[in-house]
Amino acid sequence: MIATHSADFFARFAPEAEDDDRLLAATLWVYWGFAFDDARCDAGPLSKRPAQFNALAGQVQRVCDAPFAVGADPYVGALRDIVDRFRSFAPPTQVRRFAQAHRAWLSGVAWQVGNQASGRMPGLDDYIAMRLLAAGGEPTFALLELATGAEVPDREMYRPAVRALTEMAILVAAADNDRHSLLKELSRNHTDQNLYTVLMAERSLSLQEAVEAGAALRDRVLRRFLELHDRVRPTAGADLRTYLRGLRYGIRGNNEWGLRVPRYLSRGHWPDEMEFSELYYASQPCDTRPGPVEGAPGIAWWWDPALA
Amino acid sequence: MIATHSADFFARFAPEAEDDDRLLAATLWVYWGFAFDDARCDAGPLSKRPAQFNALAGQVQRVCDAPFAVGADPYVGALRDIVDRFRSFAPPTQVRRFAQAHRAWLSGVAWQVGNQASGRMPGLDDYIAMRLLAAGGEPTFALLELATGAEVPDREMYRPAVRALTEMAILVAAADNDRHSLLKELSRNHTDQNLYTVLMAERSLSLQEAVEAGAALRDRVLRRFLELHDRVRPTAGADLRTYLRGLRYGIRGNNEWGLRVPRYLSRGHWPDEMEFSELYYASQPCDTRPGPVEGAPGIAWWWDPALA
Repeated sequence: MIATHSADFFARFAPEAEDDDRLLAATLWVYWGFAFDDARCDAGPLSKRPAQFNALAGQVQRVCDAPFAVGADPYVGALRDIVDRFRSFAPPTQVRRFAQAHRAWLSGVAWQVGNQASGRMPGLDDYIAMRLLAAGGEPTFALLELATGAEVPDREMYRPAVRALTEMAILVAAADNDRHSLLKELSRNHTDQNLYTVLMAERSLSLQEAVEAGAALRDRVLRRFLELHDRVRPTAGADLRTYLRGLRYGIRGNNEWGLRVPRYLSRGHWPDEMEFSELYYASQPCDTRPGPVEGAPGIAWWWDPALA
Repeated sequence: MIATHSADFFARFAPEAEDDDRLLAATLWVYWGFAFDDARCDAGPLSKRPAQFNALAGQVQRVCDAPFAVGADPYVGALRDIVDRFRSFAPPTQVRRFAQAHRAWLSGVAWQVGNQASGRMPGLDDYIAMRLLAAGGEPTFALLELATGAEVPDREMYRPAVRALTEMAILVAAADNDRHSLLKELSRNHTDQNLYTVLMAERSLSLQEAVEAGAALRDRVLRRFLELHDRVRPTAGADLRTYLRGLRYGIRGNNEWGLRVPRYLSRGHWPDEMEFSELYYASQPCDTRPGPVEGAPGIAWWWDPALA
């Protein structure tokens, strides 16, 4: 649990959060989410048992949708405590947005658990659609309003361009996480689905080629994120601007956290605070071709010229 | 498909819809939903294969979340056509609400498919939480805004009292559907989970006792719906009032549709339009005890005195 550095992680997403109670509640959810992921999703007895996972996900989600709900699994009661905190300081709209994002996350994990159970390696398009949900970015970014107190109006939050920016931020962060955990997964002989195993299978690539193709895909998405962001920001209201800053903090913060967090390093190694303190950033994106990305129709709409 | 009488069904939910294109698009989704339910959920090869169902649900949902998405299953392309219609006439907020409701429905079906696969009979509390999603009421009621053009502000739509009213309307309609299809299910020796088999197992009841207990539960929820509705309506804005009328039309319309629709009658019998034209309504609810309902903590919040 400690090794997830969840407080470090989420504080990087919401450096502007001024209210300790709000930031604490959001951070507690991140701890909860990593713990649930490890105990009930990625690993653990349910990781290849979709029937049981679907039922647990339903019980877990119910405490987001309804106060007073209960469940036998200890993760249900812990989550209820956290969501009750959200209800104590946030309007129903922001709590509901979090609840919907939470359901989206669990639906992606259910998809992943099903793939693991049936030994199915998804194609790139399916993997991206699944990973956009299973990565947990939807609830994590929904925490931004809860942590900062921003209340983005509906007509701004659901603007297709803002939805596209949210999805792009999630995919960039998820691709970075896939990269951070690659060494650990290889050393454990994991054959799980991740961006690289998917690209290797779909495009008949070596691991090294897949790493390069994954970085190229990630950079093309980030470039489109920056381009579209700069078109959206000038007309955004104050609370949407807070949210958009959160997306950008999140992309960078997730990356800096991921390079140092014991969770993604090989087992037994616990870096001290100064280790990896010098991070290097590439001076150029490794792929500057405009999108849409080939073979991924489910995200082609991010490059729709009509988005603004 | 024809036997679902989907146009009859949804026209009863939205008698105030004035725009034919809107009403047509909403009705097409109802046809799609019943067809998908029969071919891919309740029956068909995926009804007990949660791994495969989770993957298909993910692909299906992606066309609600993202324009241009594609999928191999013919139901994916058909749904995309329908959602593109919604996008052509409705603001992004209303389309997004429908998409979220659609995901909620699929998550409930995934729970149900998992229970069928593992032979698990849920307890009453779990069954209600699952049925609130799997019944399809969330997307059906989300169609109200799309069909009528109402645009309920966030702060009204996500008021806990309005959410409680939506959930109560869904449970009443789902209980009515369980009752309508009971004879058909018994005649086919279905042992599937429904309100009565759940009550029989949880409370050691005979079928006749379970039918009475189910009707009592349904009436208690409907009474609370009416009581809370009358507290919410006086301060509701015009579009919320349209939505609330839709909930009430839906409860009655689902019931009148369900008593006549060939889908719920025994196989081979196709009633003519005048058959069952005389419906009898009880003059009193069969149970007038105040809630919350015993053994169902997940819906206890509907009776929270703080709701208004």
